[in-house]
Amino acid sequence: MNINFDLNKVKFDDNGLIPAIIQHFETKEILMLAYMNKESLIKTIELKEAVFWSRSRKEIWHKGATSGNYIKIKNILIDCDADTLIIFSDITGNSVCHTGTRTCFINPDDNLARAIF
Amino acid sequence: MNINFDLNKVKFDDNGLIPAIIQHFETKEILMLAYMNKESLIKTIELKEAVFWSRSRKEIWHKGATSGNYIKIKNILIDCDADTLIIFSDITGNSVCHTGTRTCFINPDDNLARAIF
Repeated sequence: MNINFDLNKVKFDDNGLIPAIIQHFETKEILMLAYMNKESLIKTIELKEAVFWSRSRKEIWHKGATSGNYIKIKNILIDCDADTLIIFSDITGNSVCHTGTRTCFINPDDNLARAIF
Repeated sequence: MNINFDLNKVKFDDNGLIPAIIQHFETKEILMLAYMNKESLIKTIELKEAVFWSRSRKEIWHKGATSGNYIKIKNILIDCDADTLIIFSDITGNSVCHTGTRTCFINPDDNLARAIF
């Protein structure tokens, strides 16, 4: 695969992490945000499936390995400061969120957006 | 203004920050990601303009106060864990990025997305 960006220039934070915004490549809906360390970013690129660092479990987290709801990578964008990623993705299931909703920004009780106002 | 979410339930990280994804309310394009502390989130809601915490300058940062490129808030969504925000926004100028591009994910040299592959 052609990589157009020097991965050594990715800026990980003090915890070795970078936020990765998962955005549906067609609908542009934001599905979730999670964090990657260098190892999980490299695995994500190799597998073309999202692999995160779980901050709660402190381990590599191949999203979908348990649920079957994999995040299939179409492309990855990096911002001007090289400290944020957008992962353009497709999904294999109907749900990304552990609550069963399509995105982590939808409330399972009423299926509406979790809006502050 | 009606606030539908208890702001005391927002989960700030160990540095007192929460990532805020700025997404255009019509095009759904992701414009940038920055961080808010509790004070800047409350100011954002009061002003209906994005106010961040600048991690580099270690100060409250009212986006647009210098450049004129304000981010006008349409709504704010919060995720299932209450530790990520999507800010649905309009913009007053043509540019959000300090490089002069419309979003922080576009390269000013060729005006193309900063794609990793």
